Amino acid sequence: MTKDELKEMLEKVANGSLTPDEAVTKIRLQPYDDLGFAKIDVHREIRQGAGEVIYGEGKTDEQICKIVKHILASDSESVLITRMSPDSAERLAKEVELFYDKTSKIGIAGKRKTDCSRGNIVIATGGTSDIPVAEEAALTAEYYGSRVTRLYDVGVAGIHRLLDNAAVLAEANAVIAVAGMEGALASVVGGMVDCPVIAVPTSVGYGASFNGLAALLSMLNSCASGVSVVNIDNGFGAGYLANMINKSR
Amino acid sequence: MTKDELKEMLEKVANGSLTPDEAVTKIRLQPYDDLGFAKIDVHREIRQGAGEVIYGEGKTDEQICKIVKHILASDSESVLITRMSPDSAERLAKEVELFYDKTSKIGIAGKRKTDCSRGNIVIATGGTSDIPVAEEAALTAEYYGSRVTRLYDVGVAGIHRLLDNAAVLAEANAVIAVAGMEGALASVVGGMVDCPVIAVPTSVGYGASFNGLAALLSMLNSCASGVSVVNIDNGFGAGYLANMINKSR
Amino acid sequence: MTKDELKEMLEKVANGSLTPDEAVTKIRLQPYDDLGFAKIDVHREIRQGAGEVIYGEGKTDEQICKIVKHILASDSESVLITRMSPDSAERLAKEVELFYDKTSKIGIAGKRKTDCSRGNIVIATGGTSDIPVAEEAALTAEYYGSRVTRLYDVGVAGIHRLLDNAAVLAEANAVIAVAGMEGALASVVGGMVDCPVIAVPTSVGYGASFNGLAALLSMLNSCASGVSVVNIDNGFGAGYLANMINKSR
Amino acid sequence: MTKDELKEMLEKVANGSLTPDEAVTKIRLQPYDDLGFAKIDVHREIRQGAGEVIYGEGKTDEQICKIVKHILASDSESVLITRMSPDSAERLAKEVELFYDKTSKIGIAGKRKTDCSRGNIVIATGGTSDIPVAEEAALTAEYYGSRVTRLYDVGVAGIHRLLDNAAVLAEANAVIAVAGMEGALASVVGGMVDCPVIAVPTSVGYGASFNGLAALLSMLNSCASGVSVVNIDNGFGAGYLANMINKSR
Amino acid sequence: MTKDELKEMLEKVANGSLTPDEAVTKIRLQPYDDLGFAKIDVHREIRQGAGEVIYGEGKTDEQICKIVKHILASDSESVLITRMSPDSAERLAKEVELFYDKTSKIGIAGKRKTDCSRGNIVIATGGTSDIPVAEEAALTAEYYGSRVTRLYDVGVAGIHRLLDNAAVLAEANAVIAVAGMEGALASVVGGMVDCPVIAVPTSVGYGASFNGLAALLSMLNSCASGVSVVNIDNGFGAGYLANMINKSR
Amino acid sequence: MTKDELKEMLEKVANGSLTPDEAVTKIRLQPYDDLGFAKIDVHREIRQGAGEVIYGEGKTDEQICKIVKHILASDSESVLITRMSPDSAERLAKEVELFYDKTSKIGIAGKRKTDCSRGNIVIATGGTSDIPVAEEAALTAEYYGSRVTRLYDVGVAGIHRLLDNAAVLAEANAVIAVAGMEGALASVVGGMVDCPVIAVPTSVGYGASFNGLAALLSMLNSCASGVSVVNIDNGFGAGYLANMINKSR
Amino acid sequence: MTKDELKEMLEKVANGSLTPDEAVTKIRLQPYDDLGFAKIDVHREIRQGAGEVIYGEGKTDEQICKIVKHILASDSESVLITRMSPDSAERLAKEVELFYDKTSKIGIAGKRKTDCSRGNIVIATGGTSDIPVAEEAALTAEYYGSRVTRLYDVGVAGIHRLLDNAAVLAEANAVIAVAGMEGALASVVGGMVDCPVIAVPTSVGYGASFNGLAALLSMLNSCASGVSVVNIDNGFGAGYLANMINKSR
Amino acid sequence: MTKDELKEMLEKVANGSLTPDEAVTKIRLQPYDDLGFAKIDVHREIRQGAGEVIYGEGKTDEQICKIVKHILASDSESVLITRMSPDSAERLAKEVELFYDKTSKIGIAGKRKTDCSRGNIVIATGGTSDIPVAEEAALTAEYYGSRVTRLYDVGVAGIHRLLDNAAVLAEANAVIAVAGMEGALASVVGGMVDCPVIAVPTSVGYGASFNGLAALLSMLNSCASGVSVVNIDNGFGAGYLANMINKSR
Repeated sequence: MTKDELKEMLEKVANGSLTPDEAVTKIRLQPYDDLGFAKIDVHREIRQGAGEVIYGEGKTDEQICKIVKHILASDSESVLITRMSPDSAERLAKEVELFYDKTSKIGIAGKRKTDCSRGNIVIATGGTSDIPVAEEAALTAEYYGSRVTRLYDVGVAGIHRLLDNAAVLAEANAVIAVAGMEGALASVVGGMVDCPVIAVPTSVGYGASFNGLAALLSMLNSCASGVSVVNIDNGFGAGYLANMINKSR
Repeated sequence: MTKDELKEMLEKVANGSLTPDEAVTKIRLQPYDDLGFAKIDVHREIRQGAGEVIYGEGKTDEQICKIVKHILASDSESVLITRMSPDSAERLAKEVELFYDKTSKIGIAGKRKTDCSRGNIVIATGGTSDIPVAEEAALTAEYYGSRVTRLYDVGVAGIHRLLDNAAVLAEANAVIAVAGMEGALASVVGGMVDCPVIAVPTSVGYGASFNGLAALLSMLNSCASGVSVVNIDNGFGAGYLANMINKSR
Repeated sequence: MTKDELKEMLEKVANGSLTPDEAVTKIRLQPYDDLGFAKIDVHREIRQGAGEVIYGEGKTDEQICKIVKHILASDSESVLITRMSPDSAERLAKEVELFYDKTSKIGIAGKRKTDCSRGNIVIATGGTSDIPVAEEAALTAEYYGSRVTRLYDVGVAGIHRLLDNAAVLAEANAVIAVAGMEGALASVVGGMVDCPVIAVPTSVGYGASFNGLAALLSMLNSCASGVSVVNIDNGFGAGYLANMINKSR
Repeated sequence: MTKDELKEMLEKVANGSLTPDEAVTKIRLQPYDDLGFAKIDVHREIRQGAGEVIYGEGKTDEQICKIVKHILASDSESVLITRMSPDSAERLAKEVELFYDKTSKIGIAGKRKTDCSRGNIVIATGGTSDIPVAEEAALTAEYYGSRVTRLYDVGVAGIHRLLDNAAVLAEANAVIAVAGMEGALASVVGGMVDCPVIAVPTSVGYGASFNGLAALLSMLNSCASGVSVVNIDNGFGAGYLANMINKSR
Repeated sequence: MTKDELKEMLEKVANGSLTPDEAVTKIRLQPYDDLGFAKIDVHREIRQGAGEVIYGEGKTDEQICKIVKHILASDSESVLITRMSPDSAERLAKEVELFYDKTSKIGIAGKRKTDCSRGNIVIATGGTSDIPVAEEAALTAEYYGSRVTRLYDVGVAGIHRLLDNAAVLAEANAVIAVAGMEGALASVVGGMVDCPVIAVPTSVGYGASFNGLAALLSMLNSCASGVSVVNIDNGFGAGYLANMINKSR
Repeated sequence: MTKDELKEMLEKVANGSLTPDEAVTKIRLQPYDDLGFAKIDVHREIRQGAGEVIYGEGKTDEQICKIVKHILASDSESVLITRMSPDSAERLAKEVELFYDKTSKIGIAGKRKTDCSRGNIVIATGGTSDIPVAEEAALTAEYYGSRVTRLYDVGVAGIHRLLDNAAVLAEANAVIAVAGMEGALASVVGGMVDCPVIAVPTSVGYGASFNGLAALLSMLNSCASGVSVVNIDNGFGAGYLANMINKSR
Repeated sequence: MTKDELKEMLEKVANGSLTPDEAVTKIRLQPYDDLGFAKIDVHREIRQGAGEVIYGEGKTDEQICKIVKHILASDSESVLITRMSPDSAERLAKEVELFYDKTSKIGIAGKRKTDCSRGNIVIATGGTSDIPVAEEAALTAEYYGSRVTRLYDVGVAGIHRLLDNAAVLAEANAVIAVAGMEGALASVVGGMVDCPVIAVPTSVGYGASFNGLAALLSMLNSCASGVSVVNIDNGFGAGYLANMINKSR
Repeated sequence: MTKDELKEMLEKVANGSLTPDEAVTKIRLQPYDDLGFAKIDVHREIRQGAGEVIYGEGKTDEQICKIVKHILASDSESVLITRMSPDSAERLAKEVELFYDKTSKIGIAGKRKTDCSRGNIVIATGGTSDIPVAEEAALTAEYYGSRVTRLYDVGVAGIHRLLDNAAVLAEANAVIAVAGMEGALASVVGGMVDCPVIAVPTSVGYGASFNGLAALLSMLNSCASGVSVVNIDNGFGAGYLANMINKSR
């Protein structure tokens, strides 16, 4: 609530068109619903331009079910669930309409939007094993309406695979670079494009990759400008941010 | 060079309007100048939409001078130098026109652009000690033409200082959150806005801050969506990226 | 044994009302019972104002049983067992009266005290996944007689959920802030209250959370005053300490 | 502002005893003064029961001077400055009344309170080298009115030095255990007292102490109950928290 | 394509012996096959002198099958698969000719070359538990045609076992030193030979070996000259590199 | 072979009482048996005063069996096997005489020595969960003939449990201090005795214990003199070393 | 005080040969002198068989002077000071008799013992740069009366330098292995001798030696039996412990 | 000494052509000279094909002088000194003939070989700041006779700078890739050549580069085959190894 809105409302109280009690309600109206174990942010779509998202990991099947049904019963047509186990998905599908993708563990409950044609986001991966994380990003960005171009297995050790797709990269409003091991993809892509590059380190690798730490550090130290980094394996975060950047270009 | 451009050029070779030698030159034309110790990317402005930048740290005064003069002699009106010591600045100012800011150690050689009115980037800091990094970001974004709103010392331990500036934040196309210690600023800001938040961990702190590691990890684990992270103290990277996002919105 | 008590006893020896052997016994009386694999501190309630607690992890079902029965047979009405597996609980319930909470893995053997009305401790969590640790803290504090107010899922990325509960926080004698991921809850809460805040980092998160390390470092670097930290997932420690602080206020 | 206060004020607006503009001012009144580079929290004493504190590190002499004079000119009799260099102190002493302690680098500008007789806080150190951190804690606690008992150089490798002071420890409302190297002091003290123990790891040590990391981890893993930890070398934080606990006992 | 080849081809275009379209095709001919989830580098044998290798970990049985069959159908007689689970091997063996070694999890699909007589590579291990990694290296080097001499369980704590094999070591063109725990083998071997030593840290060990980190750091700090290091447990990388060095000596 | 022994032998060659071939054999006699996957150090008892020991982890049942039988068939009455799984033990017991202790996973194949009366080693643990590691140390020391006094569950948070056993500690030739969590036991014990203290950090703990790292660092930084440290959970190493120290006192 | 001594004393109280007050004094007699900033353990020689040692680092010149003079004035002929800066030494030499060694920064105040002929300790270093730490160990062991044999620059990359000194090693009662970089010296020496090996990692090295971490981890993971480790650069600790082991053999 | 040489010598003893004393001397002849603080390996050129090298760091000017003069007085025409400070160089130049390069801190004492024409080693750097490490490698390889081609400032964020030099890379027998920050150069180069690539991480960078750790981990996880890694900033090691590989191709 901005200062002007506040003044306007208080003037209504002064001229009697709003009672003090109504004003209290308006000012303090709880912008979330309280399920006890979770406080659902039902007004987030208004405030942030994107609906509530459920992070499935660490929640019981029952908790997920309750939250999903509560949101769908409120004012949302659909809700995105990330990192949902196949078991949770099976359970949830019995109660609500559900799209579920096994590779990325993404679920979309309710009515799935089919229009994902705005702008263009390119998602590149270093290898085949990075695809689950890339798909989490892709499905997230598509859920919010963005068009996504997939460019998988273009790691830097065979640099021609990446260079041959320079034209594809050139048309992006935002690029998501998903890579494990040494994470060099972000730097090379960063030097080839003039749009933001969101780097996603993955836990793909072994030994001194230390579960994604090597790729994470590599990406944070990228010598290319325009590169920023999200958490290891955080495909959702990258897809959400890419959609945000793509939205208004 | 895209496939179409390539075909067009080869057709010129076929019809004799371009000699094979000229074509070889065009295809392989070195897009950089070689100073021996540095290869200057003079075409970068065309390719990436932003001129070459000099990272001053680890370069001798003489190397900086040579590179700056070479660039200015080529096709650029100005060049940005980051992390330049006061001594290097003093030396350089003797040979070229130079704007230098002691707080951020940013230098702009040549003719400084004065129009920085495009869009709006908000730069927030957790404390007073984070200002040097924030100014590196601010001057960088301004150099590329963005308007910058500064919001300094709004750390989360006095949350009202941040909340009172909600309206300022709401008008940003991109927010840069600069914070050391526990780095919580990025998460709180990320929950208040609907534009990308670029988090810059700083090395401000002591003990278990481990020179910015605590803030870095905190920011990477942000529970807010739309937050991405650059290297510790990397004000330049954040300013460059924010300008990129701001550019076309 | 204080200097005065010692002198008093020695005077009894001097006047013959206590034999040397009795004195030796008194001075060296073992303040614990030795079960071979464990030395039970039966006098701890007197010395520290709180009975012995059993840390269940790493102990066999049989060891837990033996220790519990020994304590109940001594002078305690009940004993608290933390991190007890459901299997151990099932086994123990066959031999003694047992309350067991699956979420927190807390068990209370013997007669459970029902009066937990002293003072007020607020326990806040960043998310739903932090609840098991929060409940370990809550049940521990209640076991020792404190009143506990639960405030779950009030993470900082939706700061209004926390601010709306400012009044609840304001009435606390001590606050326990339980959060994983970036652990920013502790700093924001720390800036809102004038009582001690005990921060409990949790291992909730993934990737660069490094099993709670990110939250731990974040909390240790809190820019709010009055915040201290216990081990990752150490709900018991936080509950015990909060009760200590709450006790005499 | 609680719900009731808000309603009361809005009723005044409704009945005309308060104009909408006045209400806007009251609701949004900035609870801080903005110096540009710093936002001073002048109402903090009311909200948190303790005045603003200046963290001196990373601030220029001039910034410290400006902030101190601003606070003293507002409504505070004195202000505490931590980690202030001797040079900054010398500069500041020319403009305001200043108490300065070289060992701890604590400064108190304005009128120093002389009554520090409330309750009892015991501050113990493992060695002689831990004294600067301990004094930061001691002077902070005394600044807020607490009585402090110093117990220095009682490290656990000569356990009798600690045991001989058991009676001193027994009279504390809170104990601050300051130790570097292996940090075992916190655990041993924690087992001897029935009040909260605030553990302060110090960067004293070499090699595998890794600037205090060893002591920090040791203290976080304390097997004694009632122990919590603050940042490495954070004497101020420990003193502030101990005073908070001591206050109302 | 070198500058000369390019000029030659363009002259053909100029004299009409090559059409522009053919030239475009030649210049941009994709040197990989795209299976959607994988881009296979079929020209790698020409470019790098060694065929494509499949890293089995993180790929589904079906993906491995498809890639292997695609490669064998192209122009390769055989293909090497590393880190292939016994299950994947069983599945693959149903469709193509397959050699599979359980210890090292190496598979060779297609026609296995039997001539491995070129030069001499010695592979030494510190202990029995390092053998799986050593065999990955050995089978890789043999796959590419090198002769391999195995010297297992010659760890430095019984230095005579190593010294007695000095003559064996002296005849090597390259030595692979495979060791976990303290990884000292690389340094001792490095001081005994005048050929390159490739050190492979293994994750063998416990406690402070931190899954191979101790051996990795030890090997990187080797005081012997001529030693370089590959990733923890990276037998394939060591075997491939050793063969490269051995090839032309 | 010392210089004198060598000269003596060469003189025998010179005077014909030893043939050159015999001398070669003597000088180069392989002091180990080669099983292919393992080189057994059969002369180690002579060289180091203690027979070969088998580290069971990472070896197959069959490998353990072969090595044990080879050693028993050579010149040893018994052989110690550490970290042997119950399954391996069951398999081995079918072929040779075997003592096996489940807690410590120690096995003794062949004829177990029953005389363990030399000197005195005290083994103390911080808690009940440290007992498996302590027993590995105890059984190892007893295997080599040392007398062992067990002092379990004497952690420093109940310092009287340790102090009451001061007399037991005072009679030791060497003390092994086994502790996880904060590992403070080593420092306190180190200050109470005048014999070497071997500290064994254990992986007992959770959260910031980082699998024994906290205890390890703590012990390495012990402020008590006479303390040295072995690897995390390395009960065998501590027992072996303690026996070495105890041997000749 | 043992149980028997206690009983004996109490019997004296019972028969009147000792007053209660005298007994109190005897039982609680403070076994240290309190200088305020330091509590000196004057009875340590009796309790631990070795006098108080002063760790010079982090102490002011004045503090060192006061402690040294207090100890010499009590009952000690000499006192060992470690890590004393040349400046502190110069200052101290003006007030007491002082031996000072610049390489190791060891000082001996008072009357230096000249008899160091007991037993035999061998101190080996990997390189020339490890000598300062080795000398700290050597002078410490000699201070307590042990005979020391120095074997410097025998690192494992030239293994013959070590093997040629096998006879020297064979005569040791304890070996101190001092090495930085990869720290392999400890393992090789550990396999050559049948006495305890005390490994001292040094901070010698660069890059991935991480100030001695590589050597520390390497030594902790030694595959040789009988090796234990002290803190990085802790020459004093190693010398003290070696003397302890050497003492009674 | 091989078995055959040994037998041959012993036969000479048997037939009297060699006395036992002479044989003892031959067998045990110390292959190093002992300067007390250093044992110089004068036969290393014979054993390893390259003369002794002096690592200058951590040695006093006087120690360097003594060692250099001793070596030159023995059998070497020249000696390489790495990491020698300008001061040490100035001192040394007064006593022997010396070539000294300030950038790399390499010194060559004695007669510098001028023939460095064997084979071809390409040394590439990511940026200008990596040149000192690259020059250490280059001068080392040239010292041993290799031809070196320098390719500086070809980092991956401007991939065309690297690709334009593909022909240069293609002619190498070994490539040294020197890079700090994200260290991606090694992977990209590794995919372009068919010869061994030696990766040298440098400490160039800031923040999360952690003094070269990011580049080190990145290089160890390279997805290109044929890449191995040496210590951070270890130009000497890379140059030495590259020369070894180059030698016989």
